[in-house]
Amino acid sequence: MNFVEENLIKMREKNPVIQCFTNNVVTNFTANVLLSSGASPIMSYCEEEAEEMQNIASALLLNIGTLDKTTSDQMRFQANISKKTKIPVIIDPVGAGASKLRTNLSIELINKANTKIIKGNSGEIAAINGIIGKTRGVDATISEESFTSKITIETAKKFDCTVVTTGKIDYISDGNRIAKIFNGSEMLQKITGAGCSLGALIGAFISVTDPFEAAISAVEFFNIAAEISEREKKFPGSFKIKLLDNLMKLNKETISKMKRVEINEI
Amino acid sequence: MNFVEENLIKMREKNPVIQCFTNNVVTNFTANVLLSSGASPIMSYCEEEAEEMQNIASALLLNIGTLDKTTSDQMRFQANISKKTKIPVIIDPVGAGASKLRTNLSIELINKANTKIIKGNSGEIAAINGIIGKTRGVDATISEESFTSKITIETAKKFDCTVVTTGKIDYISDGNRIAKIFNGSEMLQKITGAGCSLGALIGAFISVTDPFEAAISAVEFFNIAAEISEREKKFPGSFKIKLLDNLMKLNKETISKMKRVEINEI
Amino acid sequence: MNFVEENLIKMREKNPVIQCFTNNVVTNFTANVLLSSGASPIMSYCEEEAEEMQNIASALLLNIGTLDKTTSDQMRFQANISKKTKIPVIIDPVGAGASKLRTNLSIELINKANTKIIKGNSGEIAAINGIIGKTRGVDATISEESFTSKITIETAKKFDCTVVTTGKIDYISDGNRIAKIFNGSEMLQKITGAGCSLGALIGAFISVTDPFEAAISAVEFFNIAAEISEREKKFPGSFKIKLLDNLMKLNKETISKMKRVEINEI
Repeated sequence: MNFVEENLIKMREKNPVIQCFTNNVVTNFTANVLLSSGASPIMSYCEEEAEEMQNIASALLLNIGTLDKTTSDQMRFQANISKKTKIPVIIDPVGAGASKLRTNLSIELINKANTKIIKGNSGEIAAINGIIGKTRGVDATISEESFTSKITIETAKKFDCTVVTTGKIDYISDGNRIAKIFNGSEMLQKITGAGCSLGALIGAFISVTDPFEAAISAVEFFNIAAEISEREKKFPGSFKIKLLDNLMKLNKETISKMKRVEINEI
Repeated sequence: MNFVEENLIKMREKNPVIQCFTNNVVTNFTANVLLSSGASPIMSYCEEEAEEMQNIASALLLNIGTLDKTTSDQMRFQANISKKTKIPVIIDPVGAGASKLRTNLSIELINKANTKIIKGNSGEIAAINGIIGKTRGVDATISEESFTSKITIETAKKFDCTVVTTGKIDYISDGNRIAKIFNGSEMLQKITGAGCSLGALIGAFISVTDPFEAAISAVEFFNIAAEISEREKKFPGSFKIKLLDNLMKLNKETISKMKRVEINEI
Repeated sequence: MNFVEENLIKMREKNPVIQCFTNNVVTNFTANVLLSSGASPIMSYCEEEAEEMQNIASALLLNIGTLDKTTSDQMRFQANISKKTKIPVIIDPVGAGASKLRTNLSIELINKANTKIIKGNSGEIAAINGIIGKTRGVDATISEESFTSKITIETAKKFDCTVVTTGKIDYISDGNRIAKIFNGSEMLQKITGAGCSLGALIGAFISVTDPFEAAISAVEFFNIAAEISEREKKFPGSFKIKLLDNLMKLNKETISKMKRVEINEI
């Protein structure tokens, strides 16, 4: 299984354009992550040019991080248009579960858009699955790990797409298969925008392969770059700079040596 | 007096969530300053979830840096809700004095919100106190330093809160006491967002102590980290990265050795 | 010809304030580029204070990178007011040619504002000149280089201002003269905001000289800093940090030694 390495090479050759509708905390970092990795960002919010921009781009990221009334409506519009343009959409339901608005808007966008990927942490994925607060109570013997695996698979089935649940271990499922990714770095928690830019990066890989493989490839690529960066730099300012460097530097030999991923049929 | 060191330890243990409504130039840097220091940012602008978000957070920052009609109204809404949720609010009146709009909006927000801290430079603090252009004319013999000290105390009394006036020396008063902080670095002027992220950091410390001590703790912590960073890096790109590193690295021993603060009853 | 060096010294002495209405991906980097170079940013979007802010500033940048209905209207307002305040305006027509909206809005802003400079890549400059898709077809024997030179001159004449067309070689014309700048670094393509912050930097130089010289000075200064940074750092995270350092470090001796510019009468 060398698809991570192969997809990275293909992605860099293609240099895909990703339309990122993301929150205003991470626009700059997201753009730099894409550029360092070999893709190109566009960020356009205007309804009037939504269709033209989706036709130029290979994937669309909708990240609800810093929403207000205007941006909610603009994201709804992008979601609707995506059904027409057939652009693959990645939804990042930031903060779902923390407010009703976020939970509801996330579900609405998933249903409206040409959604191929949902990416969130376990709280967010549980929230859009409607199982907040009750799941672990129902089955108190279930471990944290089994729980995360279970909601990833269930959410993938429910919304008929690939779901990425990030955490110490990352889980990825398309409803038929489940992947566990053991690479990563705790330093990613100490900089803003790591998870958000990963969403955009999945978009870059979706331009060269199917959503399940694209998600695994992006997460592996990003996490290995982070793992190397943490060895080199132990503090967050320097770590972030190294991460951008390593996203350009990382090659297939290093990925092959370092990757720790497990894929199983369900 | 070891409260700066003690508050830093308490703050890092607590890992407080700070709701930052700040300008779109500094969102990313502010979030990274909080993460490096040991706190967590949320940035939400939507009226619909304002109350839920304030209930999650330990403090609210309102920074009017890049305002327009929409954001002005959203900040007014946050200010109003804060009286209900009782969340402590830090107001950063960026550019007060430079336009009537900024002066007036700053005063309106201070009065509407559950304001515990006002943080600005001497021009901004003078402006919200209504003494633009006239003060030093009235008493031409008063020194720059005495003037800054005086407006800090007066503004604290006028609005019944703690006022932080930043400059070469930083002044902090709650109306009864005045602190002078001599630590700092001129390099903070050569990167964008230093003052703005300090506002958020005061919010982090307010979760573990009273506003006056919180302000002194945050300013000392931030300024000492900057002082160390300047010794290590003389140019602004590298300085900014070192600053983020040092906010994580800085410990109580180094603070005890380096702190230069003077507190007096009025 | 030492005007680049002389203008840099004058600009740093003056420390001009630049009002930047730019896209939300590059606000932070643009502000840091100005601060490192010796200028100061303000970023204000509100109609109510537009005139006051333009009166404080030495130049106004309008960059349409991430537009929506609100920001389009705010930029139109800034453009209109600039005719009254006489502030020199730099237009950056980001993405002109990629959507009708962007092409039309760019032309509208150029015509409405007190436009002194238009800065874009060859696709954008061609688009606002109305020659998309047809030019090179009409004269298939024309080289890429001659084409870029030609549209730069033509667009300068058409809109009666200075035009900067960026690329491997940068072309600058005021309709009477054409400058070719050979300095630069391909790494500028691997970080977001290089071109956008160059627009703001031209504004800084316009405060000390005429638009044609200002554009040459800014492009030379920025490109030489980038050239040095690329020698020192080969990967994009580190390169960006070095660039900010070198914008402060770069002096007239180094510019004199490194500059590669050619200016001709037309």
